Amino acid sequence: MDKVKQVSWAFLRRHLLLLSLTLNLSLLSRFVYERGILPETTDHRPHQEELCFEKEIINPVCGASEQEAHVSRSSTHSSSRAQAADGGNKVINLDHGDPTMYEEYWRRMGEKSRIVMRGWDSMSYFSDLENLCWFLEPEFAKQITRLHGSVGNAVTHDRHIVVGTGSTQLFQAALYALSLLPSPHASPQQPISVVSAVPYYSSYPSVTDYLKSGLYKWEGDAYTFTKEEPYIELVTSPNNPDGFIRQPVVNRSRGIVVYDLAYYWPQYTPITSAADHDLMLFTFSKITGHAGTRMGWALVKDKEVARKMTEFIVLNTIGVSKDSQLRAAKILQVVSDGSEHMGFPEDADSFFLYAYHQMTLRWERLRDAVRHSGLFSLPEFLAQFCNYNGGFTEPHPAFAWLKCKGDIEDCESFLREHKIITRSGRHFGMEAKYVRISMLDRDEKFNLFMERLSNISL
Amino acid sequence: MDKVKQVSWAFLRRHLLLLSLTLNLSLLSRFVYERGILPETTDHRPHQEELCFEKEIINPVCGASEQEAHVSRSSTHSSSRAQAADGGNKVINLDHGDPTMYEEYWRRMGEKSRIVMRGWDSMSYFSDLENLCWFLEPEFAKQITRLHGSVGNAVTHDRHIVVGTGSTQLFQAALYALSLLPSPHASPQQPISVVSAVPYYSSYPSVTDYLKSGLYKWEGDAYTFTKEEPYIELVTSPNNPDGFIRQPVVNRSRGIVVYDLAYYWPQYTPITSAADHDLMLFTFSKITGHAGTRMGWALVKDKEVARKMTEFIVLNTIGVSKDSQLRAAKILQVVSDGSEHMGFPEDADSFFLYAYHQMTLRWERLRDAVRHSGLFSLPEFLAQFCNYNGGFTEPHPAFAWLKCKGDIEDCESFLREHKIITRSGRHFGMEAKYVRISMLDRDEKFNLFMERLSNISL
Repeated sequence: MDKVKQVSWAFLRRHLLLLSLTLNLSLLSRFVYERGILPETTDHRPHQEELCFEKEIINPVCGASEQEAHVSRSSTHSSSRAQAADGGNKVINLDHGDPTMYEEYWRRMGEKSRIVMRGWDSMSYFSDLENLCWFLEPEFAKQITRLHGSVGNAVTHDRHIVVGTGSTQLFQAALYALSLLPSPHASPQQPISVVSAVPYYSSYPSVTDYLKSGLYKWEGDAYTFTKEEPYIELVTSPNNPDGFIRQPVVNRSRGIVVYDLAYYWPQYTPITSAADHDLMLFTFSKITGHAGTRMGWALVKDKEVARKMTEFIVLNTIGVSKDSQLRAAKILQVVSDGSEHMGFPEDADSFFLYAYHQMTLRWERLRDAVRHSGLFSLPEFLAQFCNYNGGFTEPHPAFAWLKCKGDIEDCESFLREHKIITRSGRHFGMEAKYVRISMLDRDEKFNLFMERLSNISL
Repeated sequence: MDKVKQVSWAFLRRHLLLLSLTLNLSLLSRFVYERGILPETTDHRPHQEELCFEKEIINPVCGASEQEAHVSRSSTHSSSRAQAADGGNKVINLDHGDPTMYEEYWRRMGEKSRIVMRGWDSMSYFSDLENLCWFLEPEFAKQITRLHGSVGNAVTHDRHIVVGTGSTQLFQAALYALSLLPSPHASPQQPISVVSAVPYYSSYPSVTDYLKSGLYKWEGDAYTFTKEEPYIELVTSPNNPDGFIRQPVVNRSRGIVVYDLAYYWPQYTPITSAADHDLMLFTFSKITGHAGTRMGWALVKDKEVARKMTEFIVLNTIGVSKDSQLRAAKILQVVSDGSEHMGFPEDADSFFLYAYHQMTLRWERLRDAVRHSGLFSLPEFLAQFCNYNGGFTEPHPAFAWLKCKGDIEDCESFLREHKIITRSGRHFGMEAKYVRISMLDRDEKFNLFMERLSNISL
């Protein structure tokens, strides 16, 4: 009974806070921040800058010229506030999605999330011989199941969990497994077609084709795919780059759908139901911000598909680092602990509430800046009821899919002139009028970006 | 001056101990063990059993039948000494090379090798933007260089270090990089041939061909490769499975050699010189036993090759887990600390001396058992001067390459009848008269194996 009271009270308190958010009462939110309950970060440590996943621009200083990169690197050693010292000369690289904005939360959590590894821990190749995916640490599997249960974003019952070195590896494992399935899904004579609706994640083409595999082949935009043959359709939902919820678009009998649910978490989008697909991919990096820990998992209904994906990961890297799995398990445990015991003042410990706050404030500021400049537009989203938050919430995607208005045909070049590095819409199968901009970098860089964007004029 | 005295004294003391080894004075070694200086392990914790890297037998209980696997699994929960409880029924799986024998050393090292990771550590994708391999942790790079320096087994000067999720990933990164090099090395029209002299590492064929890449293709035994076209030759030295030092065998103008030096460490073979090749692969697992930490590195002379290998790892897994790199750095630091300060009684802290002792004793026992049974033969090795140990030492490979004598044509099946699971010579491009047997498992299993092997008769 006490437990029920406690849960109900926590639920009510959560609603009170969410009410301020759904009614867009940013002043109240700011008041909370100013009282130090959820302080804004003022992190002045060195920043690491760039990443491009495209094959042709793999250098991490891609997007920036050598000179710009130099400026950017030098500036990482500055200890002064970027806004004050910048004078408009600092290159702001938001090409990649390095989720460093969450560092502040983990710093506040302190020792809760720490792990200790001794020299003799986890030395064997093996984690769990009873499991089809024998290199999956049982504690990590437990925390994955627990987290999906507490967030309610995916069905884990009757699913095999396959762990991967990030979801990029799992994506390739899925292509491998599905292309080797018996007919009617695949043909042994020719590579199976891989498609995704535009705008699609910019890495899909290169990661599908870099080894010129005879098993699978990138065929581009799913909307224009007309071949009467087996295919794999990649559905990223919410979508990278534009943030919209997606469904398959080809819908033919000989197709298989892989769902990339990297961003289906409460800080980015309303959780409207538990995803219940045959093959779903998740990545640790976009949930909690731990991109340096290369970790992801797949929830797989079919045993043979899970077995083949496991086989791929054995052939590719002989399993997945146990150290990283155990660290990820600890981080997920802290997230679930915070999710299951929310309430004032404990709400400050809820990762998803913290992250939702941050994203809400950033998107408000971005939309203000876009309105102020008058040169750009952003996608518009509808609020939906979020089962996790218990109220209507709007999507706040991890990337802004910005469109240049009027005569500006090459939005990436235009922004580059203003020393803002973004990823052109062309990499996502779209026109150059669009760019993708990371919303997950540290406060310092985001603040500078807001200032720069607001002041751009023709 | 004091430093010089200290080093000389340590060198002399090391020689005294090594003298006992090179003269094969196992009694003296045993005395040392019995005095508790280097105690033999009596580890009764559950064992994890099996691994096959071959595509067709990916299940970790491969080699063992379902019933045997069940026996094997059940037996892992026994707390009694295996020798006493076994009665000849326990399946001894030595198919894979899980290097668990080193656990005991790391347990003895205690807190020295422990690392702590806090929630906010290493969250970004990036480790070092100044480095071509931007996801390589500087501390790991430092410890790699230091270890090669103190062991003297490889030149690191003027080399690029590329970190990988184990050397299996680096092997693929090397194939990718070398196949995309400009002519005369490769042709864009057809996949480049990949060869290795028999007996070759059993994973090479499947890891080369599992994605049916259009870039490279497995062509089998290097001795029989006659095509007048570009090729990549894999030279594993000391060789897996047979332990011999190797050189390239094709030696044509349009070839590129990849050196897999996984076992070029003092416990396995005399260190006769610092390897100085264009592309050398190393794996963390076989040095210190940390196979659960998927970690390896390449030393690469050519900048463009290093850049392409880095590109592969970005496309494959977007870098390498930082947690694992930092743990590996700590372990290597402890190894180097022990190597650089050897002497009585501190010798007990030297990892390589400990490992060399273990391997020496195990090989003596194996040769005794083989002599006793009369049904098998083993490779014979010559002692060579080891620069690291400062004396003549014999190779003690990580695998025993056992040959069945007389009429036993299928050695793997023969040993399987005696519930010893090994890997058939066929997987290494050789006859079925050979099998490969891991020498790196825990004492309990090795002891049982010795007992079983000694008592086999026709």
